[in-house]
Amino acid sequence: MSSPASECYETAEPQTLLQRYRSMRSRSEQLIAPLDAEDMVVQSMPDASPAKWHMAHTTWFFETFLLKDALADYPIFDANFAYLFNSYYEALGPRHPRPQRGLMTRPGVDRVLAYRKHVDEHMAALLQSPQSEELRSLIELGLAHEEQHQELLLMDILHLFSLSPLRPAYDTQWPRDLPGRRGQFKPLKGGLTQIGHAGPDFAFDHEGPRHTTYLQPFEISDRLVTNGEWLAFMRDGGYRQAGLWLSAGWSLIQDNGWDAPMYWQHDEQQGWQCMTLRGMEAIDPDAPVTHISYYEAAAFAHWADARLPTEAEWEAAAVAGLLEQVDDVAWQWTQTAFNAYPGFRPASSAVGEYNGKFMINQIVLRGGASNTSPGHCRATYRNFFPTEKRWVCSGLRLARDARLPEGL
Amino acid sequence: MSSPASECYETAEPQTLLQRYRSMRSRSEQLIAPLDAEDMVVQSMPDASPAKWHMAHTTWFFETFLLKDALADYPIFDANFAYLFNSYYEALGPRHPRPQRGLMTRPGVDRVLAYRKHVDEHMAALLQSPQSEELRSLIELGLAHEEQHQELLLMDILHLFSLSPLRPAYDTQWPRDLPGRRGQFKPLKGGLTQIGHAGPDFAFDHEGPRHTTYLQPFEISDRLVTNGEWLAFMRDGGYRQAGLWLSAGWSLIQDNGWDAPMYWQHDEQQGWQCMTLRGMEAIDPDAPVTHISYYEAAAFAHWADARLPTEAEWEAAAVAGLLEQVDDVAWQWTQTAFNAYPGFRPASSAVGEYNGKFMINQIVLRGGASNTSPGHCRATYRNFFPTEKRWVCSGLRLARDARLPEGL
Amino acid sequence: MSSPASECYETAEPQTLLQRYRSMRSRSEQLIAPLDAEDMVVQSMPDASPAKWHMAHTTWFFETFLLKDALADYPIFDANFAYLFNSYYEALGPRHPRPQRGLMTRPGVDRVLAYRKHVDEHMAALLQSPQSEELRSLIELGLAHEEQHQELLLMDILHLFSLSPLRPAYDTQWPRDLPGRRGQFKPLKGGLTQIGHAGPDFAFDHEGPRHTTYLQPFEISDRLVTNGEWLAFMRDGGYRQAGLWLSAGWSLIQDNGWDAPMYWQHDEQQGWQCMTLRGMEAIDPDAPVTHISYYEAAAFAHWADARLPTEAEWEAAAVAGLLEQVDDVAWQWTQTAFNAYPGFRPASSAVGEYNGKFMINQIVLRGGASNTSPGHCRATYRNFFPTEKRWVCSGLRLARDARLPEGL
Amino acid sequence: MSSPASECYETAEPQTLLQRYRSMRSRSEQLIAPLDAEDMVVQSMPDASPAKWHMAHTTWFFETFLLKDALADYPIFDANFAYLFNSYYEALGPRHPRPQRGLMTRPGVDRVLAYRKHVDEHMAALLQSPQSEELRSLIELGLAHEEQHQELLLMDILHLFSLSPLRPAYDTQWPRDLPGRRGQFKPLKGGLTQIGHAGPDFAFDHEGPRHTTYLQPFEISDRLVTNGEWLAFMRDGGYRQAGLWLSAGWSLIQDNGWDAPMYWQHDEQQGWQCMTLRGMEAIDPDAPVTHISYYEAAAFAHWADARLPTEAEWEAAAVAGLLEQVDDVAWQWTQTAFNAYPGFRPASSAVGEYNGKFMINQIVLRGGASNTSPGHCRATYRNFFPTEKRWVCSGLRLARDARLPEGL
Repeated sequence: MSSPASECYETAEPQTLLQRYRSMRSRSEQLIAPLDAEDMVVQSMPDASPAKWHMAHTTWFFETFLLKDALADYPIFDANFAYLFNSYYEALGPRHPRPQRGLMTRPGVDRVLAYRKHVDEHMAALLQSPQSEELRSLIELGLAHEEQHQELLLMDILHLFSLSPLRPAYDTQWPRDLPGRRGQFKPLKGGLTQIGHAGPDFAFDHEGPRHTTYLQPFEISDRLVTNGEWLAFMRDGGYRQAGLWLSAGWSLIQDNGWDAPMYWQHDEQQGWQCMTLRGMEAIDPDAPVTHISYYEAAAFAHWADARLPTEAEWEAAAVAGLLEQVDDVAWQWTQTAFNAYPGFRPASSAVGEYNGKFMINQIVLRGGASNTSPGHCRATYRNFFPTEKRWVCSGLRLARDARLPEGL
Repeated sequence: MSSPASECYETAEPQTLLQRYRSMRSRSEQLIAPLDAEDMVVQSMPDASPAKWHMAHTTWFFETFLLKDALADYPIFDANFAYLFNSYYEALGPRHPRPQRGLMTRPGVDRVLAYRKHVDEHMAALLQSPQSEELRSLIELGLAHEEQHQELLLMDILHLFSLSPLRPAYDTQWPRDLPGRRGQFKPLKGGLTQIGHAGPDFAFDHEGPRHTTYLQPFEISDRLVTNGEWLAFMRDGGYRQAGLWLSAGWSLIQDNGWDAPMYWQHDEQQGWQCMTLRGMEAIDPDAPVTHISYYEAAAFAHWADARLPTEAEWEAAAVAGLLEQVDDVAWQWTQTAFNAYPGFRPASSAVGEYNGKFMINQIVLRGGASNTSPGHCRATYRNFFPTEKRWVCSGLRLARDARLPEGL
Repeated sequence: MSSPASECYETAEPQTLLQRYRSMRSRSEQLIAPLDAEDMVVQSMPDASPAKWHMAHTTWFFETFLLKDALADYPIFDANFAYLFNSYYEALGPRHPRPQRGLMTRPGVDRVLAYRKHVDEHMAALLQSPQSEELRSLIELGLAHEEQHQELLLMDILHLFSLSPLRPAYDTQWPRDLPGRRGQFKPLKGGLTQIGHAGPDFAFDHEGPRHTTYLQPFEISDRLVTNGEWLAFMRDGGYRQAGLWLSAGWSLIQDNGWDAPMYWQHDEQQGWQCMTLRGMEAIDPDAPVTHISYYEAAAFAHWADARLPTEAEWEAAAVAGLLEQVDDVAWQWTQTAFNAYPGFRPASSAVGEYNGKFMINQIVLRGGASNTSPGHCRATYRNFFPTEKRWVCSGLRLARDARLPEGL
Repeated sequence: MSSPASECYETAEPQTLLQRYRSMRSRSEQLIAPLDAEDMVVQSMPDASPAKWHMAHTTWFFETFLLKDALADYPIFDANFAYLFNSYYEALGPRHPRPQRGLMTRPGVDRVLAYRKHVDEHMAALLQSPQSEELRSLIELGLAHEEQHQELLLMDILHLFSLSPLRPAYDTQWPRDLPGRRGQFKPLKGGLTQIGHAGPDFAFDHEGPRHTTYLQPFEISDRLVTNGEWLAFMRDGGYRQAGLWLSAGWSLIQDNGWDAPMYWQHDEQQGWQCMTLRGMEAIDPDAPVTHISYYEAAAFAHWADARLPTEAEWEAAAVAGLLEQVDDVAWQWTQTAFNAYPGFRPASSAVGEYNGKFMINQIVLRGGASNTSPGHCRATYRNFFPTEKRWVCSGLRLARDARLPEGL
């Protein structure tokens, strides 16, 4: 992209695919360095997966969608793994049930690392041969897929450690979000605009087709909502006023007793604390709020006399260079339900199950987060989660209808 | 409306508000004529309400939002009813829990009918006095509200009777859907178009504001999918091919063992039968299919190499006069998640809880059904239900992206 | 019985079986006199049944186990009823699921009363003919069975009305339990003793065989624990001291928030109130406590430095004439798990499912309650309920190991 | 014991308490030798605990009930462990919830082994000093407690590995149950008898007081029911005949689809297989059946025209030397609900929570199993589990009422 917004999605210097593959795979192994084998086997909730499973499943992806078909005489590492490490591909046959991923004490971490080595060696052979356009595109998908699981691994470890009475730190040096000033609304005049991905660079299937849409004039905040603003919402009884909430959200917070973002915990002496990858910490009022559900984001926006942006508004504003904290702090809830763009067709192979079959009862989040793999995002990137999920590093950016200047 | 499509939304000869009030209220009482007191007290599932509750709640609505404030010296019929018959208005205080509506054996049907009489007499007084614009709009809302509950009452009775081992008929003379020919795709060229309600006539708040949107060229079927087409889908293994289904839909049909529309029942000797307001009947292959979930509608469309229309496409096609079976057969699932139109603001009073707080995880259905109250719908009408619900009289109409003529 | 205790089980003047049949059946109809049809169709929880169902099921029992086989040319009233009104007899084929008894709005009360009339007329014919021993025993079982359902009907109506926001009275004249003095421990010296039913009079199968058992010396209270004693337990933190409770009981009261007997309700102004068949009333401290679970009874006994009696102790004490409030106030939890007496064999026909198949995870209650049908009980009578049930009219009588006189 | 039956409860040559402590603790460490750290952290169901937790909890028991009070200047190893490794002692304060034991990835196995070493060193000091009677009795309790957890550890590992798609063996050399002949009924004439523990040797509190009870004459099988006999029950439709089952058992097998003992699995080619500590194996028809619920045991006995023994019958027969396979194959379901013996009083300290608070809705099992620690059992030993549990190594031994010789 050549627009000013593209800075936040800067691409590093060109690398060969093999260099990129090795660097990305090596990052996964760095991510588990602080973990013991015992940390890597446990599944802390049905949404989460053991770290070991992430390490194996991403490897299974390369074996299944690339090596098996594209590399002559590729020797399958272990025939059981097709069953153990398939995530959700119906077309590939039966699989180990998701809620039971935490029961797989065998194979052990060592064997999973051996699996990675085996696949990496054969991928190196494949990546050193000439590749068809289709193969190249599958390799790019495999890279992006593992980057997604790198983020999930960090999300899942934070969740696991948050449930430990010892509240262990994953990495006491994990970078902090930089605090900053409060956001300001920036106007955009609307009209016909194009959104979605087009062109030769990699993007997920559901980021396209690029298409025309029509926007009313609107305003959008250049920064994310902060913990300090969230504390003001809480002090004002934000979690106790039914009128601010969607009906389903009001039930949800009643049923679960939610009165603060996930990972926040109140302590008589120390006030509000928060579990992070660095362990328990005091809340920094100037840092962006994270780990909130869609319902909480929508209630806050209501309270602030604003609303969440649509995904088209978000993308238009990002491309126009209006936004800060675009993709390095927290995913940003939009108000748009995840659905197919006009003309979208999923691939007809098993890989076609990647995104299309999840297009219901989920909300698009835009941007990127501090735990997202470097270089993973784009202005057209569409993340999505169900409305009640909070273990994703989610925040919010406000928008509102255009306010006409006085005198009009 | 002056377009050809408006036929299906024909307005009857002008009546006074009082005449309309009486006629609408009287229809509610006609609807319960086939029922015994015992039929009217039971709640067959948490989504459903007892017929008696519908009769009382609609009356409570007029008492609460109109008589209490607008009629001087109005005597509250029974102070307990504010608690018993509030549906979901948080701003009006605590209320009887929805899943326990079926425990209210008292007050009896007779007392509820006395309540209706009391309110009707006072409403007559109110309706014979001059009314402010705001009051008039609330009265219109009360009329439309009771019409909605008339349909719910019929839905709930069908559900209750379907669970009775005796499968009683509600009314053996209840009109049948007329069978007919299969649908044909009609093209619309797209571009900028306006949708949503504007003007002085009544519409629900969420039907507006009228606003501009942009449509790609598309085609839409002029008729609804039939039982015969659905049987072909079933015979082709429609309920057994994971690849046709959204992931959540596939889980849903597995978990519930769904292999046909709701109320269908297979009998060794008589084949497929269906529970209706007329009792059990053989399936008519030429009649439109009804009582399907969003997931089933989407899977069928996938199988048929088509898709569901967006709500904007549906409205544009209806206004353009392209559609038959618009509002007299079955509600039609769109692919659009229920959300606020640009610029939507709910009323700030308790009445503001009518639609806005339900704008999440529901899908817009357009049209109208055979059990919908006469004259209730409009081309801008937005009905909405969660994706898995089937007790609404729901069907589907196919759409697809425009196919370019050969030679281009 | 010739012992003093037998007074409480006095038999009325001899009547013919027909007289007894008519009188018992007529009592059922008197019991529903205060109820509307709407009160009789609703099922307030899975354990409870609609009053209409009780009226029909008891009739079905006579039709199924007597008329069908024993009366030549008996015309079945309605073939559907075999399915609708079977309670739990597996040997008699499929049946309407228990939790869905409240969905049977049809047949209506009128038709159920017609069913009763039909069966009564034919039973009169049967009862006027000579009867074999086996037939006579089945008729006695039918009488006792309907008496049990008369009590269940009252239990279920109280439960239903307790959930109504209106808290309606079933009968404002329903007799009160007579208050009285607190209990005193009476000693019994133990040794070999016989318990259980023998002889020609009717008893349920599981009351026999009469057999020898061995008792340690013990003491038992001559009266039941009162509300006043229970209030002292509550004031002393009885519901908050884990050490008093069985582990499963402690979980149960935590999970359900129980801090008083069922039907008790605390009111800022009026203090402790209780829902009864007479409607809401202030707690009478001198009346026996009722509607407590086994866990509460056991915790109270622990707190009172006593224990619950075994069923053998209870029966021995009752026969010895030591007890007051034997069978006219409340069922009394024993500490004995419901099991077969030595040598017990259930009948091999469907009637054999009456008691034997419930001999697990239930506790024996002895005595009889204020809502028990007159003349229903005996000193050998074994009632039984699961440990957590409270809608039965259950109370407790304390026992303790014999205290040796000083000097020994 | 001097009776012939005592062979099966043989005591090894006298050892000092310290020798016994070391030998017992060392056995725990041998038991985890085949396990990886990953195997030791996972909790496969709420009933089960991670192996690591067993290793730590048993150590916590010695620290909490012995070292803290009895050893001057004992340094607590880690203050967090009081919370982490308390199982269910309410009197000792809050504790980590049982279903979340599998979330404790920290402390790791190494730290738990260090904890064991720390406690063992201090226990050695304690055991080398003179001990009061009370202290000695607590030490004996600690030894017996860890032996119980050794068995639980094996039960829990078998359960975990049975859920692994790889079905790993715990120890391919784990000893097999010796097959043998079918059982024969042996008569006992009944009358007054004494059961329960008395005397100076250690026994759990609930094994006493020794007391008199009365037995009818009965017969009891000298051996356990075999897999072959169980297969005959299955072939005869044992799992499909409602009439054989307790009502709750019939529901349980329907709801869970049980049609064979736990760990049995049918394979088209290999027939019935069973998961064991040695991995998957073919069923040996001559070996005793294991891993059955109380309901299955009772249904089998019904089918075999027999019944389960009472615990008093079992103990009398064991003491009389009538039984084989007493305590080295499988725990044997009795028909006796777990309850206090006459005169039983739990200790008033926290240790008093050991058994008494579980005396409800559980059934006594007698004997001992192949995975029970050597020397752990006695003829008076009362094990107990809820009726539906099958992960205990449970089998059955038949009994029946005495059959009078012909001619009487």
